[in-house]
Amino acid sequence: MLEVINFAEKFGRFSSLWEPKVVAEMNDYQFKLVKVKGEFVRHQHDDTDEVFIVLEGTLHIDFEHERKSLSAGEMIVVPKGVNHRPSAENECHILLVEPSGVVNTGDAGGDLTAPNDAWI
Amino acid sequence: MLEVINFAEKFGRFSSLWEPKVVAEMNDYQFKLVKVKGEFVRHQHDDTDEVFIVLEGTLHIDFEHERKSLSAGEMIVVPKGVNHRPSAENECHILLVEPSGVVNTGDAGGDLTAPNDAWI
Repeated sequence: MLEVINFAEKFGRFSSLWEPKVVAEMNDYQFKLVKVKGEFVRHQHDDTDEVFIVLEGTLHIDFEHERKSLSAGEMIVVPKGVNHRPSAENECHILLVEPSGVVNTGDAGGDLTAPNDAWI
Repeated sequence: MLEVINFAEKFGRFSSLWEPKVVAEMNDYQFKLVKVKGEFVRHQHDDTDEVFIVLEGTLHIDFEHERKSLSAGEMIVVPKGVNHRPSAENECHILLVEPSGVVNTGDAGGDLTAPNDAWI
């Protein structure tokens, strides 16, 4: 395997929003690229922390009592069980790190639930 | 907690080479920033995969039979048990993702073994 994964090249392969695309697996964790724009559904993951790394653009995450904004070159750990709603005014490219099998909408479900384990 | 971690700001806080600095923990995994230049020791991690994400500069990884070179915006998964030697001609900034407790020199040990769990 030993594949060098180029994020820009991978992002060039899809245009859908809020649909995580798996690019790598490390032990039982996955690295997923996501294009986001607009507001996502408020949700939480009760069983795991989740890492957001912003590669391009600006991502907002609204927690219960505060908003955090991340630019390219910044990351945040959303602890398990912590309710959050990601959003972005303009298209933003992010890298998610989380255990394999995590569903994007967590406990909320709904229309924005993306196919899981979608590799690109 | 909910700390927004800015990689450039964190890199500004240290100058040592080949000494991973922990910036975040997700479940039982850690995110570590490392400045590298020159040749590291050839080693392997028998118990875990390891992810290298290049944030600035160019990183070479010499495997048994091939060299992979990564630029900013690229990542690679080094599978567990796979022998590798990282190197960089010029200073290169990388983000490592691996389970807490992983020692930088793996099975090789030696002078380049850095203090573990060094947060910054």
